[in-house]
Amino acid sequence: MGRWQPDSRGRLQEAALALYSEQGFDQTTAAEIADRAGLTERTFFRQFSDKREVLFGGSELLKERIVQGVAEAPEADGPLDAVSRGLEAAAAMLGESRRDLARQRQMVIAANPELRERELSKLADYATAVAATLRLRGTGDPQATFAAEAGMTVLRVAVAQWAEGGEDRDLTSVMRESMAGLRAVTADR
Amino acid sequence: MGRWQPDSRGRLQEAALALYSEQGFDQTTAAEIADRAGLTERTFFRQFSDKREVLFGGSELLKERIVQGVAEAPEADGPLDAVSRGLEAAAAMLGESRRDLARQRQMVIAANPELRERELSKLADYATAVAATLRLRGTGDPQATFAAEAGMTVLRVAVAQWAEGGEDRDLTSVMRESMAGLRAVTADR
Repeated sequence: MGRWQPDSRGRLQEAALALYSEQGFDQTTAAEIADRAGLTERTFFRQFSDKREVLFGGSELLKERIVQGVAEAPEADGPLDAVSRGLEAAAAMLGESRRDLARQRQMVIAANPELRERELSKLADYATAVAATLRLRGTGDPQATFAAEAGMTVLRVAVAQWAEGGEDRDLTSVMRESMAGLRAVTADR
Repeated sequence: MGRWQPDSRGRLQEAALALYSEQGFDQTTAAEIADRAGLTERTFFRQFSDKREVLFGGSELLKERIVQGVAEAPEADGPLDAVSRGLEAAAAMLGESRRDLARQRQMVIAANPELRERELSKLADYATAVAATLRLRGTGDPQATFAAEAGMTVLRVAVAQWAEGGEDRDLTSVMRESMAGLRAVTADR
């Protein structure tokens, strides 16, 4: 981003989420988003390849952070503890975003079957990458899959709770509580 | 099915899976499937609404069985034990199908992004229904989500392992072992 446009990306994201919420994702065009943000369509396409990328733009970077967190976990960590390190890294990255925008994003995705499928695919892709990283640490199968999938459920539940109105704690705290909740459920006989 | 066509559905499924495996799902037509099975295209469309239904036809029934298993679990069962009852019901239903066809189905789905998304959506839909059933039994949130999602991971992993070559045990046994494996991973500190 040039200095002459200090927050065009943020303004476009905010405008896009507002329009997706008001009139639906399918009904919104890039031109309308740019117009709402007081910017040109050309500026929109300098920041985003299409209107879906407003919702999913950070996902490759997030995956890298999670995988790195898992890979750098101490050797003595069990598989789910290693996954927790990845989730801490995710919480540090996602926790910087505005909570009201995260909530809007969740509602937009929930309202659109195609976006829901994309979100599921993204989480499945994270789980596959995390399981592969656990295998490199020596975790066998299907333990690697169980730990990775459970971790992605914790991520999804924690982000949803954090984004909700009335939740004041930061994402890291919510994530830790969610992980403890998962352990409690599977320990309960 | 009429008595004059005792196994047209089974023959069509077998022919479809063979063709999807050999030449790809997208490249296969209903007419080719019918031809391979020695039946007419009209017979194909009496059995299946389209060629995707050959792969996903039983999923609503399976969901009902799982949900019923969870709903009928003894009151004293914890949430994951209740989910295990649903998985036992799933294993009883799926375990009747031919293992070689189940393996072919898995490989066809794994090879096609659109089919993978459909399979993920189906499992997410099962998890949503199971979580709702757990809430009716008094399980709170996010415990209901964790137990339901973990259960669907167990289902997926167990069916994949059961369908693999070299696995001789029945699906119920594989499912129980998978559930124990999940519990072990989440208990490991």
